[in-house]
Amino acid sequence: MHREEQGSDFLNPDRLFPQGPALSIARELYESVANLPIVSPHGHTDPAWFAENRPFTDAAALFLTPDHYVLRMLQSQGISYDRLGVPRKDGRPVAEGREAWRLFAANYHLFAGTPSRMWIDHSLNFAFGLTEPLSAQNADALYDLINKRLADPDLLPLAVLDRANVEVIATTEFALDPLTHHRALKEKGLIGRIRTTYRPDDVTDPDVPGFRENIVRLAEITGEDTARWEGLIEAHRKRRAAFREMGAVATDHGVPSAATADLPAADKQKLLDDALAGRLDAAGRELFRAQMLTEMAGLSAEDGMVMQIHAGSRRNTDPVLMAERGPNLGADIPMRTDFVNGLSPLLSRYGNAENFRLILFTLDESTYARELAPMAGYWSSLRIGPPWWFHDSSNGIRRYLDQVVETAGFYNLAGFNDDTRALLSIPARHDLWRREVCRFLALLVAEHRLSKASAREIAAYLSYQAAKDAYKL
Amino acid sequence: MHREEQGSDFLNPDRLFPQGPALSIARELYESVANLPIVSPHGHTDPAWFAENRPFTDAAALFLTPDHYVLRMLQSQGISYDRLGVPRKDGRPVAEGREAWRLFAANYHLFAGTPSRMWIDHSLNFAFGLTEPLSAQNADALYDLINKRLADPDLLPLAVLDRANVEVIATTEFALDPLTHHRALKEKGLIGRIRTTYRPDDVTDPDVPGFRENIVRLAEITGEDTARWEGLIEAHRKRRAAFREMGAVATDHGVPSAATADLPAADKQKLLDDALAGRLDAAGRELFRAQMLTEMAGLSAEDGMVMQIHAGSRRNTDPVLMAERGPNLGADIPMRTDFVNGLSPLLSRYGNAENFRLILFTLDESTYARELAPMAGYWSSLRIGPPWWFHDSSNGIRRYLDQVVETAGFYNLAGFNDDTRALLSIPARHDLWRREVCRFLALLVAEHRLSKASAREIAAYLSYQAAKDAYKL
Amino acid sequence: MHREEQGSDFLNPDRLFPQGPALSIARELYESVANLPIVSPHGHTDPAWFAENRPFTDAAALFLTPDHYVLRMLQSQGISYDRLGVPRKDGRPVAEGREAWRLFAANYHLFAGTPSRMWIDHSLNFAFGLTEPLSAQNADALYDLINKRLADPDLLPLAVLDRANVEVIATTEFALDPLTHHRALKEKGLIGRIRTTYRPDDVTDPDVPGFRENIVRLAEITGEDTARWEGLIEAHRKRRAAFREMGAVATDHGVPSAATADLPAADKQKLLDDALAGRLDAAGRELFRAQMLTEMAGLSAEDGMVMQIHAGSRRNTDPVLMAERGPNLGADIPMRTDFVNGLSPLLSRYGNAENFRLILFTLDESTYARELAPMAGYWSSLRIGPPWWFHDSSNGIRRYLDQVVETAGFYNLAGFNDDTRALLSIPARHDLWRREVCRFLALLVAEHRLSKASAREIAAYLSYQAAKDAYKL
Repeated sequence: MHREEQGSDFLNPDRLFPQGPALSIARELYESVANLPIVSPHGHTDPAWFAENRPFTDAAALFLTPDHYVLRMLQSQGISYDRLGVPRKDGRPVAEGREAWRLFAANYHLFAGTPSRMWIDHSLNFAFGLTEPLSAQNADALYDLINKRLADPDLLPLAVLDRANVEVIATTEFALDPLTHHRALKEKGLIGRIRTTYRPDDVTDPDVPGFRENIVRLAEITGEDTARWEGLIEAHRKRRAAFREMGAVATDHGVPSAATADLPAADKQKLLDDALAGRLDAAGRELFRAQMLTEMAGLSAEDGMVMQIHAGSRRNTDPVLMAERGPNLGADIPMRTDFVNGLSPLLSRYGNAENFRLILFTLDESTYARELAPMAGYWSSLRIGPPWWFHDSSNGIRRYLDQVVETAGFYNLAGFNDDTRALLSIPARHDLWRREVCRFLALLVAEHRLSKASAREIAAYLSYQAAKDAYKL
Repeated sequence: MHREEQGSDFLNPDRLFPQGPALSIARELYESVANLPIVSPHGHTDPAWFAENRPFTDAAALFLTPDHYVLRMLQSQGISYDRLGVPRKDGRPVAEGREAWRLFAANYHLFAGTPSRMWIDHSLNFAFGLTEPLSAQNADALYDLINKRLADPDLLPLAVLDRANVEVIATTEFALDPLTHHRALKEKGLIGRIRTTYRPDDVTDPDVPGFRENIVRLAEITGEDTARWEGLIEAHRKRRAAFREMGAVATDHGVPSAATADLPAADKQKLLDDALAGRLDAAGRELFRAQMLTEMAGLSAEDGMVMQIHAGSRRNTDPVLMAERGPNLGADIPMRTDFVNGLSPLLSRYGNAENFRLILFTLDESTYARELAPMAGYWSSLRIGPPWWFHDSSNGIRRYLDQVVETAGFYNLAGFNDDTRALLSIPARHDLWRREVCRFLALLVAEHRLSKASAREIAAYLSYQAAKDAYKL
Repeated sequence: MHREEQGSDFLNPDRLFPQGPALSIARELYESVANLPIVSPHGHTDPAWFAENRPFTDAAALFLTPDHYVLRMLQSQGISYDRLGVPRKDGRPVAEGREAWRLFAANYHLFAGTPSRMWIDHSLNFAFGLTEPLSAQNADALYDLINKRLADPDLLPLAVLDRANVEVIATTEFALDPLTHHRALKEKGLIGRIRTTYRPDDVTDPDVPGFRENIVRLAEITGEDTARWEGLIEAHRKRRAAFREMGAVATDHGVPSAATADLPAADKQKLLDDALAGRLDAAGRELFRAQMLTEMAGLSAEDGMVMQIHAGSRRNTDPVLMAERGPNLGADIPMRTDFVNGLSPLLSRYGNAENFRLILFTLDESTYARELAPMAGYWSSLRIGPPWWFHDSSNGIRRYLDQVVETAGFYNLAGFNDDTRALLSIPARHDLWRREVCRFLALLVAEHRLSKASAREIAAYLSYQAAKDAYKL
């Protein structure tokens, strides 16, 4: 039905570079950064992979079922999650790997113009030497090749980190996580290269299922009275320390809005009482999250852990999908976000605190030039995180650099995060970022807005050092 | 006063194409789509034109007084609607055609850089062979030429459809419309090429003047008890069927916001009771519209008619204009729109329903990347309509493609709508869309993000087939 | 630490121009406007400079401490305002000029890619002949050179106006300002070239410290009973006349939102009573400002003064900075702004009033295409001000022209404002605007969207005549 892509232009070495006089500048800049090590300070890879270092199971489990970008696009064109092999809670059968893989391959044209297409092309080439796009024609052969290759030593998870030149990678665990895999990694001397991140949404967000039980569990783990505000904060202090032992340099907070609060002590205790009694309405739950963000900022100013806020996703917008298969499968949608008014209480208290570092991520691009860049261009604690989620794409990065650099400069940016669950896409994503950074800088040089020497320096900074600086690595 | 445009570059065949290496690719792509038939699934042409097939009256009535883009621009520079010949409700005299035309021509420089300029240049060339821009110098001669030519057989409305290679065109009628002209068209065997669209704002929006009378009239037409919720919905069911007999494949809904609701039956009846008693405040009227959108979605899931939502216009912002001359004369202004929270009730129920198709149109470009593309990239019912109204322009199309494609892909786009009241501008508008699509694709090819074969396929899809697919034609 | 910029590309004559075929068009357009006189109808230079015409004190006082763009960027990277020599309210010592200047120079790389970098490079070249960028190496020598040169006749404030070819410049004074310096200027025959602007925020905004005392003082100055609404308006009428005697052609209004109101007389008096009694809550203070904007519009329709609204800044977001050093030092951050609903009461009354002119400025770029362009493309009173504050930059201007021109045209734009407190940056800012305008027009010409003759005309208009027309100069 759909004509095949011509293989000749597959992964062209000049891809994404600007046309015209800036092309040679972009090439030169890219050559200077293409082989820098990868620093991956925020992401969602599974620590079990690295602790156990066992082969991945099959092609579909690697490229299809865990990739919500891919699943959602196929679903949007009427291909059901059953047919894509996404497991159901009720255990009813779904398509098997090869069947789902064929469907994916036969619909690969749907990804034309999307970052998924670039990531997957790159990953298939990086890991399996593919030199033409996935298609209905090569689906079976490729499926067999991948499954055969997965047991090879160079495709074990730790070997992938080596091949991809990953200097450091952070995973993300909830506050109650036992960090079992990180303990195993510590015994192997791998903490440092692999690190956890403290993401306490399970005990800071009353909208999380099991929140009240989680607070009780937090008390058990830490020996603190988490029904008292001081005890709750002390419990966080202890968990943060425990996470730091497993390499954590940062915390992460997923919140629907950027609202923060700075309440008097009595109000905080009342808020906690109401939360534990299940008495909070939607506004109360929002206020609880808001106050907890400010508390986390205070602890960061104290212990030096870098705070990340990922604000503005409306989670699980499809109740049927949630009921049948659970979260993180493609039905989370961005919302408008207000950082200026939302963060005011937190920043008024800690914005210029000496030891404090806060990295902001947005799904609302209208905040780049209006809010994030002006804020990061003033407060010493703030850095702007790279384009997040739907915006981590070529054009998304172009809009980001276009809108933040003039007001925030280059040195208030946090470099790149791949933020991925897909191990093999890590080099692809960093490569795309580096290409787009070089493109942007090359255009500035071509317009005589930046010297080539500065461009080279900034290219290296944004490709590598900025992430280390931002995360105090 | 203002120097004339030089005629030599008038309608240059390379207009809008990118400079540099992508130019030849754009040319090649454009050649492959330039002559495809026009599919116009949403617009506001007058069905009487096609049913009666009589000549248009004069140049001003053709190009000036019905074109709110043109009127508003002249008004913004202090040229009153009286002087432009826009009729008054009180019947007081306004300028005559030639006088208004001269004023338009003398101020044609105001349209530099606007889409109106491109549409009018193209239309004047298409219909009257003009090879230089309208100006004070050629105003009179052109006025005479147009008026002389209007009676020629090749400028009768049906002949214009032929010359413009229009395969199918949809008009838009309210629920109470008798569809007289479509009946005449049916007798002539023209339904199919010309179709109506069901736009029930007259009976779904309590803010419409005469709303309560309209509900009574709806009862009379359908024989249903429209004071009962079930009867009201049944009446819609009947009207939709009647519209389908006149070729309708779609419904259309003009709403100030994208709010939807999914209330229990008792609340719906109470809402209707209050609406018919005139007891609804602004929030209640909003809720009525919100519930009606969800009802319409349910009926679409049932009868397969494609649902269109045009959300976010604040209508009639100039009370003086409204009082003196009525609506649709240029004083409607876009507002911020929230699709994510607004559509949640409707999509939670029907978002992945098998027979349901919903096309969304926005006037708030900040929703492209933040809301519409992520939503259309998940829900199987959703398609993103083309840039609407103020954004249906070269740069508007560029921003649209830039911001939607990476997340929604090409195949969740609904192709092009000309959405026009101006018959002669239809080929101009489709040509502009095709040029911009080819430009966008050519740049992707030049950056090695897309093969030329895929680009050709997508160019044809977005120029022609996407509209047929989206509207189930 | 950071490599120096290479001097060879310093202020390249082709800077900011497009690459490829449009380059020569941009050059040609720019040559035709580069030397036009500067019209600066809105800004914040100190009238004492022109009235007294005394030398500036030192390099840091000229380039560093008054420039909040520069201060905030250095502060964002952890360089405290103490070390930058920004005076404290408590009189505790801060760094001296040379020390602060060295710090600025050593961190000049932070400004890569920012407009500050372009403005300062240009200013240092314009005033002191510098041909390489500021750096740690040349900091001391440059500091000495600047301080030595400041007493030279060609660097006195009035001489700078001559050298920069400034035809007219407006300062901005509050309603209670005695206009002492403008009186002195009037005696010297300089009113006309130098003009004041009426900015009555001190008596229209109940959130201004000392508001109630200011209203009393306004009564004393004008002899009106400012506790009565009619008296308050009459007092404005008198102050506006007094400002016009000092050359004022415009008023200016700095407001957090674009809210306006049109209340009945009794409500207005009650609002004033409550304001004077200190009884207004936040919503009441917002309503007071909202009503005052409509009153000011009424007075402008009466006396012909051009009204400017600068809406959407959240002022003084850092309470520590405010307490220690005061306002206007870099901690003001943009907020989302709603012009459509906000301005509705004002425009419903005065939007097409014959003598009324309103220029709107936004910090929320999402309003360009969605609100400002559609509004300015309808109401005859409206003009869109140039990109403001954080958006007055190369990419900011590109986004502005991209998003406003197609709907508002070129002739509803107000030309350029430099809006600066930094005298030496005035030619730099106008030059940047002219370059970007020529770039935009050159790209339109290269795409065959505009004839070269029209582009030349529009380039001259936006560089010079538009500001004179918009401000009735």
